[in-house]
Amino acid sequence: MESNSKLETAGKVLRCKAAICRNPGEPLVIEDIEVDPPKAWEIRIKIICTTLCHTDITYWKMKSGLVAAFPRIFGHEAVGVVESVGEYVEEFIVGDTVLPVFLPNCNECRDCKSQKSNLCTKFQNNYPPNMPRDGTSRFRDMNGEILHHFLWVSSFTEYTVVDVTHAVKITPEIPADKACLLGCGVSTGIGAAWKVAEVEEGSTVAIFGLGPVGLAVAEGARQRGALKIIAVDLNPEKFDIGKKFGVTDFINPKTCGEKSVSEVIKELTNGGADYCFECIGLASLMQEAFLSSRKGWGKTVILGVEMHGSQLSLNPYEFLRGRSVIGTLFGGA
Amino acid sequence: MESNSKLETAGKVLRCKAAICRNPGEPLVIEDIEVDPPKAWEIRIKIICTTLCHTDITYWKMKSGLVAAFPRIFGHEAVGVVESVGEYVEEFIVGDTVLPVFLPNCNECRDCKSQKSNLCTKFQNNYPPNMPRDGTSRFRDMNGEILHHFLWVSSFTEYTVVDVTHAVKITPEIPADKACLLGCGVSTGIGAAWKVAEVEEGSTVAIFGLGPVGLAVAEGARQRGALKIIAVDLNPEKFDIGKKFGVTDFINPKTCGEKSVSEVIKELTNGGADYCFECIGLASLMQEAFLSSRKGWGKTVILGVEMHGSQLSLNPYEFLRGRSVIGTLFGGA
Repeated sequence: MESNSKLETAGKVLRCKAAICRNPGEPLVIEDIEVDPPKAWEIRIKIICTTLCHTDITYWKMKSGLVAAFPRIFGHEAVGVVESVGEYVEEFIVGDTVLPVFLPNCNECRDCKSQKSNLCTKFQNNYPPNMPRDGTSRFRDMNGEILHHFLWVSSFTEYTVVDVTHAVKITPEIPADKACLLGCGVSTGIGAAWKVAEVEEGSTVAIFGLGPVGLAVAEGARQRGALKIIAVDLNPEKFDIGKKFGVTDFINPKTCGEKSVSEVIKELTNGGADYCFECIGLASLMQEAFLSSRKGWGKTVILGVEMHGSQLSLNPYEFLRGRSVIGTLFGGA
Repeated sequence: MESNSKLETAGKVLRCKAAICRNPGEPLVIEDIEVDPPKAWEIRIKIICTTLCHTDITYWKMKSGLVAAFPRIFGHEAVGVVESVGEYVEEFIVGDTVLPVFLPNCNECRDCKSQKSNLCTKFQNNYPPNMPRDGTSRFRDMNGEILHHFLWVSSFTEYTVVDVTHAVKITPEIPADKACLLGCGVSTGIGAAWKVAEVEEGSTVAIFGLGPVGLAVAEGARQRGALKIIAVDLNPEKFDIGKKFGVTDFINPKTCGEKSVSEVIKELTNGGADYCFECIGLASLMQEAFLSSRKGWGKTVILGVEMHGSQLSLNPYEFLRGRSVIGTLFGGA
């Protein structure tokens, strides 16, 4: 039926349901919307499955700044099927299963060609609220008001339009509810452990925040043969699920008593963890992660998007003792 | 004559001249002092040549803190000849030319055995003011007052005593006035470019501060084939000497006008330098270096010892865009 549907809808404005956020922090409302057909180098996707990531929530609350734009359609972890394609699209055909991704990949610039970077220079996440090539939106509500895109994906809708540089073809054999996590959380966590930190066999790892990203870091570190994987979280119930992903030790900051979390980690690791991951987005935790890393080669990896716009304050002497800090979006993938 | 001299002085207290600093920031005074014979695992060295490093000056001014101790004998870049050895010393014999080094190397601990760290765990720079094994001094003035050591070297004296873990045997064929720079500045700079940053052919480098360490970074980057080596310094006369070490562009912050140094560097490098080095010791410059590094893989290396004990304040979002910060003492050597 997909091919018939294609014939009927391709090139036309589509009407469908979407969850719209009218103002920062307000509940999403399901409404009818209109979705334009894809322009050149764009594809229109029927969303099969989408998940909620903490980054959606961070931006949902955000009242100002370059990336705050309302009304808007959130969602950036999803799996879909190509409904129609715009001019010049060669990478995808109607019916392909795809994973929209918030980081672009042009395959042409110095960054995309390099193994070291995942931040495309040609499409440097242009026009944050809308489409990357012309900065316009493909969504309207039934009163004709423009609805903004989110992170070049916008998956809380039955149909969305994304640029070809923001989609990856995947096999339809991966269950959609698992595959959509590859669009952000799981790739970010596993990528951070493998590609960014390069966790080694026998090493010690500390993970701050045991949400989906933190669990993916644990899984990545376990696969790499880490000896000790310490998770820090305020919710002690997470230890049980953490164990399934390789977590060996659990620290609840509430029950550390007089000691700081970094002091406890230093005791558990005989001087500090080889690799520390901040998966929450709080400058104070990034600082604690840095202090938990060992001298000589301790590496702190920042994955969390700072929630309050705070600066990260670090002691330069601790750097001189061989520590380093690196950040990553999407796990360097 | 060296062997005769050995017979006469070995095991005995030696009298010689030294430059003593009685109080923070006060001029050094040349006085007679007494130098104890080396204890177990120690060697007594006749200093042939010593240089003044900016770190001497930083600590000379320092009025308080763990490492402030007066009266004291400064100096930590030097070359000398072993005058006598203490019990159990197997690595050195009388007459060996040696380079005292402020970082210990026990060859036994996890750090010293690793290629990744240069920060010995067994002798973690113990007892900052004095000898690393027992925390006592080997120096006294002629009134019997203890004179403190500095950075486990103390080279502003005709004779000093250092632990075997703080000395490296070198060939006497290297001119002493050049070799002594290997004890700190040159090793720090070249090591930072080679071992810590791993500067690659065709890359762009920005160096903040064109003193001896900065020049050594430039030389290291030039040897590695860096395409562009930008130096930032308030003294425009340094550009000429910088050119000899490979500097291709010079920025005087005073003449940048409306633009910040990082903006100028971003223009010169089409988006930011691949590698930035802070060789002064100012948190504000470390911040500027970080902002001058390119997204995707820009690496900032901190070599300067922060002069005012300031914290380094960085924007966590800039980390998420693939930037990293690492520090090093002694260039990871």
